[in-house]
Amino acid sequence: MKWQVIPGSITAPQGFLAAGVFCDLKRLGTGKGSNKGRKRDLGLIVSEAPAAVAGMFTTNQTCAAPVKVCVERVGGGVAQAIVVNSGNANACTGGQGLRDAVTMTALVARELRLPVEHVLVGSTGRIGVPLPMENVREGIHRAAGLLGRSPAQAAEVAEAIMTSDTRPKQIAVEFTLGGKTVRLGGVCKGAGMIQPGMSPTGARPASAPQPATKRGLHATMMCFLTTDASIEARLLRRCLQEAVALSFNRITVDGDMSTNDTVLLLANGLAGNPCLKGAPRLAAARDLRLFRAALNHVCLELAKMIVRDGEGASRFVTIRVTGAKTSTDADAAARAVANSALVKTSWHGGDPNWGRIIAALGYSAATVIEDKVDIGYSLPGGRKVVYGLKGGQPTRVTFRQACAAVAPKEFDLHINLNLGRAEAVLYATDLTEAYVDFNKGDVTDPASLGG
Amino acid sequence: MKWQVIPGSITAPQGFLAAGVFCDLKRLGTGKGSNKGRKRDLGLIVSEAPAAVAGMFTTNQTCAAPVKVCVERVGGGVAQAIVVNSGNANACTGGQGLRDAVTMTALVARELRLPVEHVLVGSTGRIGVPLPMENVREGIHRAAGLLGRSPAQAAEVAEAIMTSDTRPKQIAVEFTLGGKTVRLGGVCKGAGMIQPGMSPTGARPASAPQPATKRGLHATMMCFLTTDASIEARLLRRCLQEAVALSFNRITVDGDMSTNDTVLLLANGLAGNPCLKGAPRLAAARDLRLFRAALNHVCLELAKMIVRDGEGASRFVTIRVTGAKTSTDADAAARAVANSALVKTSWHGGDPNWGRIIAALGYSAATVIEDKVDIGYSLPGGRKVVYGLKGGQPTRVTFRQACAAVAPKEFDLHINLNLGRAEAVLYATDLTEAYVDFNKGDVTDPASLGG
Repeated sequence: MKWQVIPGSITAPQGFLAAGVFCDLKRLGTGKGSNKGRKRDLGLIVSEAPAAVAGMFTTNQTCAAPVKVCVERVGGGVAQAIVVNSGNANACTGGQGLRDAVTMTALVARELRLPVEHVLVGSTGRIGVPLPMENVREGIHRAAGLLGRSPAQAAEVAEAIMTSDTRPKQIAVEFTLGGKTVRLGGVCKGAGMIQPGMSPTGARPASAPQPATKRGLHATMMCFLTTDASIEARLLRRCLQEAVALSFNRITVDGDMSTNDTVLLLANGLAGNPCLKGAPRLAAARDLRLFRAALNHVCLELAKMIVRDGEGASRFVTIRVTGAKTSTDADAAARAVANSALVKTSWHGGDPNWGRIIAALGYSAATVIEDKVDIGYSLPGGRKVVYGLKGGQPTRVTFRQACAAVAPKEFDLHINLNLGRAEAVLYATDLTEAYVDFNKGDVTDPASLGG
Repeated sequence: MKWQVIPGSITAPQGFLAAGVFCDLKRLGTGKGSNKGRKRDLGLIVSEAPAAVAGMFTTNQTCAAPVKVCVERVGGGVAQAIVVNSGNANACTGGQGLRDAVTMTALVARELRLPVEHVLVGSTGRIGVPLPMENVREGIHRAAGLLGRSPAQAAEVAEAIMTSDTRPKQIAVEFTLGGKTVRLGGVCKGAGMIQPGMSPTGARPASAPQPATKRGLHATMMCFLTTDASIEARLLRRCLQEAVALSFNRITVDGDMSTNDTVLLLANGLAGNPCLKGAPRLAAARDLRLFRAALNHVCLELAKMIVRDGEGASRFVTIRVTGAKTSTDADAAARAVANSALVKTSWHGGDPNWGRIIAALGYSAATVIEDKVDIGYSLPGGRKVVYGLKGGQPTRVTFRQACAAVAPKEFDLHINLNLGRAEAVLYATDLTEAYVDFNKGDVTDPASLGG
């Protein structure tokens, strides 16, 4: 038995309600805030029963108020509602920002008669601008009255969290645990300031895989996951940590880590499966393995959606580094290539440019011996790799053959350092004029400016 | 007494000859190599007398053949000629590349009757393509016959080393040492793959300021300096190391460190000043101080020319970090900001965007405490700083005032971390559509593709 993809997202599991509204949050204090097409900008996700909760948060030292609130509350292990807004990141907003984030949760708690500490909060948008709390208050009140379990209402939340995204991102899967049907759904958003490096507490791990390099991005990535599986909070946290390590922490759009990156997972147990328990280390039990596989799949699919919809992106590149001395090296090598302006622009031009790739490997923190490096391209997941460099030197592959390998919208880049057994995968984009044009914004229309 | 700027460059000091020729080196082995306007692509710099020599070389682990040859020969302390080509980097060219680099020096040695070990070599251009040695051979022969000491011939070399540069870069200064007139001149080139991190041997320093981050770029930066000062090779090397640390190692265009970054300095002693000697640590002697000041000035001016002519650049930004805990932190903070795609695009749009800057600081390897950070802009060297963030929170500066501060083509960014006394300066550019357009190249015309 395996999981299977089903329609819908966060309201697919039993006992979850959602709603999204427009309350005009994209303001700069100029009073001129515009919102093209009045897209929804405030969403609410609610579980009918208290749920086990796990979270992963940006390790950026500049960390937004809602992240601080969530880190503290997720530690309690129980939550029942999430309120989230786009258009304003509530970051670099000081004591007022923290009070505003707490107020958002208090407003939800009052509307829904929940303990305030069971309400979580997320924000994404421009940094350093106070939240227009009157709009937020009105939006929360309206959303609370509109909550429902239809796929359309789940989609409203997927829309409400969009910033520079061109399309909503959602998925749901179904599987069986102990004879019970269990569902898991999620929504997420990108699409710039994207190179997350999240940890359960927002603190930098002692042995972070990329401690001295860039670790994340900014329009912020946010992901909200729901499941009706019954699972202990401590185990849930370990599962989410694994899933994020294999998905959201493996993507980069522009190499900029956001102040707001957040993943939250609520598990309300209403499926009635035998509760998944165990030591924090992952037990080998079949049910747990299936739950983990489903969660890993959902997170990876959502993470890839973020990269495919990356700001201005015209290519989706899977970078596969093998043969590194250590996994830290493998990660550093992959990130150096993924974030090289020259490599990214060459992809945009359909230019395989091995030279720029081996240059990026050479300046990475990874140990690289030039005349051992192999570099090649394939179709996604393809076994037939067109190697342009073998042992650091050009092969007989012609320029035309190499160009053909990077012509598709999606391809894999294979790098073998031939120095060890460590590996890394990273999902990346190219760098386009559209990215630059979008992010330079229009200072005559401050509301057009991204985070 | 101080140095003063004079016309000319590498032939301004006594006893230096130069020539630059076109020999059609911009080829990809396709036989279709084009060279718009037939710009010069091979240069020769010769001293009439054996000269003390010092060099600084890329610390990229992927290091071009000419760099390997120079590292070894510069160790001897004496040199008399430099041959340099553009259009082909002679990098990732294996044993053949190394033989070709040595052959280039041997051809010059034969033409000029010099010991081959006194001839140095530099290359810049596309990586992974064998040098068309017939063209090189013919070019060297022709250049050797055209050597002369006119400013025009020096300018030919400045032109011959250009790749994506839009203009040649040269400077000369004059000063007095022990009653003798001494001159120092230089030529250099950029303009992409620029974030040099050079060391005297090309080896990574044990305590590199940016060990685990990107440290350099690629169209490659190259700089050739000449002086008729009399100075011991060991002291010359120490002076050059200082000058590069304050100039070329303080610039970034796109954050990509090149495989070919090279700075060479020849001092032939023909000015007849009392020879500058001393322990490798810099003595306080007045003459030495003056020499160092002149060299530092020449290198810094040339380095700034590279940034101002950075690929597609529309802004020249001096990043001034103060109050860091350590100088490693100061450097890491400056580089995170300078290489953030989001910060760079905001500058291009004339958007002061403090939020992106503090986000970049937050994910840098530097210790940053959000509510201590001050961020402001000023005119170049200006004392009047417009602070947008103080203690991590927005000031009362209006968006319009802040935009005015980043409207000029050149401005300073002031970042005070308020955690210590360490400082760093970095010279950077914005990121424009023109950069992307240029570097994506045109795969239907392989000769158009940069390094």
